Amino acid sequence: MSGIVTAALIIIGNEILSGRTRDDNLPYVARRCTEIGVRLAEVRVVADDADAIADAVNACRAAHDYVFTTGGIGPTHDDITVAAVARAFGVEVVRDAEAVRRLTAYYEGGDLELNEARLKMADAPAGAAIVDNPVSGAPGFRIENVYVMAGVPEIMQAMFEGAVREIKGGDRLRARTVAVDLPEGTIAATLAAVQKRYADVEIGSYPYYRSRAFGVKVVLRGVDEARLDAAAAALIEALAELGGNPALEEEEGA
Amino acid sequence: MSGIVTAALIIIGNEILSGRTRDDNLPYVARRCTEIGVRLAEVRVVADDADAIADAVNACRAAHDYVFTTGGIGPTHDDITVAAVARAFGVEVVRDAEAVRRLTAYYEGGDLELNEARLKMADAPAGAAIVDNPVSGAPGFRIENVYVMAGVPEIMQAMFEGAVREIKGGDRLRARTVAVDLPEGTIAATLAAVQKRYADVEIGSYPYYRSRAFGVKVVLRGVDEARLDAAAAALIEALAELGGNPALEEEEGA
Repeated sequence: MSGIVTAALIIIGNEILSGRTRDDNLPYVARRCTEIGVRLAEVRVVADDADAIADAVNACRAAHDYVFTTGGIGPTHDDITVAAVARAFGVEVVRDAEAVRRLTAYYEGGDLELNEARLKMADAPAGAAIVDNPVSGAPGFRIENVYVMAGVPEIMQAMFEGAVREIKGGDRLRARTVAVDLPEGTIAATLAAVQKRYADVEIGSYPYYRSRAFGVKVVLRGVDEARLDAAAAALIEALAELGGNPALEEEEGA
Repeated sequence: MSGIVTAALIIIGNEILSGRTRDDNLPYVARRCTEIGVRLAEVRVVADDADAIADAVNACRAAHDYVFTTGGIGPTHDDITVAAVARAFGVEVVRDAEAVRRLTAYYEGGDLELNEARLKMADAPAGAAIVDNPVSGAPGFRIENVYVMAGVPEIMQAMFEGAVREIKGGDRLRARTVAVDLPEGTIAATLAAVQKRYADVEIGSYPYYRSRAFGVKVVLRGVDEARLDAAAAALIEALAELGGNPALEEEEGA
């Protein structure tokens, strides 16, 4: 697929909204989406509330190519994501036979019983496909363009890497970063002028204050490497004319 | 104010969505809202896109008592939050005389010129009030129930603490945490039974895996301390009957 492919992430959990738990899934999904040519266009954090989850899922699945949810798929009463996603799609919750088989194999021979609470982790919206969980037994699910994943970061990441194999990314955004030792307000007009000349390059300005000195990291993002190089060169020239010492930084990602 | 007071946080910035920058404002706002009796009910991360920002602001301000936005209020071309919020309210962007006065005082006698880019930080949606910025010169703004704040955490936090003085919190949620050395699937039915008996207490289950042992932190939240204590006692008794060693933890927050 070429062109722009977008995704939304829906983080489900009262514990994130209360400040008790810090979310670690957003940075991971954001970075990996960028790497596979998917633009994470929107993130929502919603409570353990079926209406809130269903509303977010329906808004996001209509607006984006892919939707990822994290959290709320465990064995306890507050794990309501599957029911809420089923409601969003207007389908029933069914017990998935393959998921039951996987859970049975996972718990077989161990100390823990595959009781009704654990079997609940085999429930899925009708019509959903399984998302592998190589870490623990309980799978995630995909229904249409919505991937329902665990909240525990190690499990979420393993599920995401499985989901990625099915995802068709689009044009990958590449980046250049130009650091300059001038304050943001001083370079603003110059940045705007370069942005105007390179409308196909997205220019972001991220100020910092370090060792008692103001500076800015200017991030240029776009799909065309040649245009990025040209825009970065134009920017460096213009910033040098302003009296700064601009420097292109090594890129680790986009 | 008593009863339930809710808020939404809108985090604005491409750099969060690309994974380049990690947001630090959500944990702060979440924790402080809990402390002042405001329930952070929803968080959205949106791109530097005027339509996306305006849509999020309009959805959130209709649904919640308070809305906080972070990011996009600096001097550069990619700082479009004020314009987007003005669009959401259907008002013009105007240059705020008091904000100009503050910026003038801030830059006076320094090395930096109060140029047009920096003056842009005095622009506000028509009808907005100033939110103090004790860290640097440029203020935030409040229009109706929407607080427009900086993205840089130190500045955001200072602005938030100013905004808090105007905010009327509701019933504060208190919490009890019961830790138990049993896996989540083993205690799920017990949790559900206690939840059913204490419908006014919100019971969340947060599993952990440490030193090769499964365990769960069960968080009970509610406004009535006596009911919380009763629910926690009932839970501890039931978990002990299951063969666990449940223990009430010290609370640091809710």
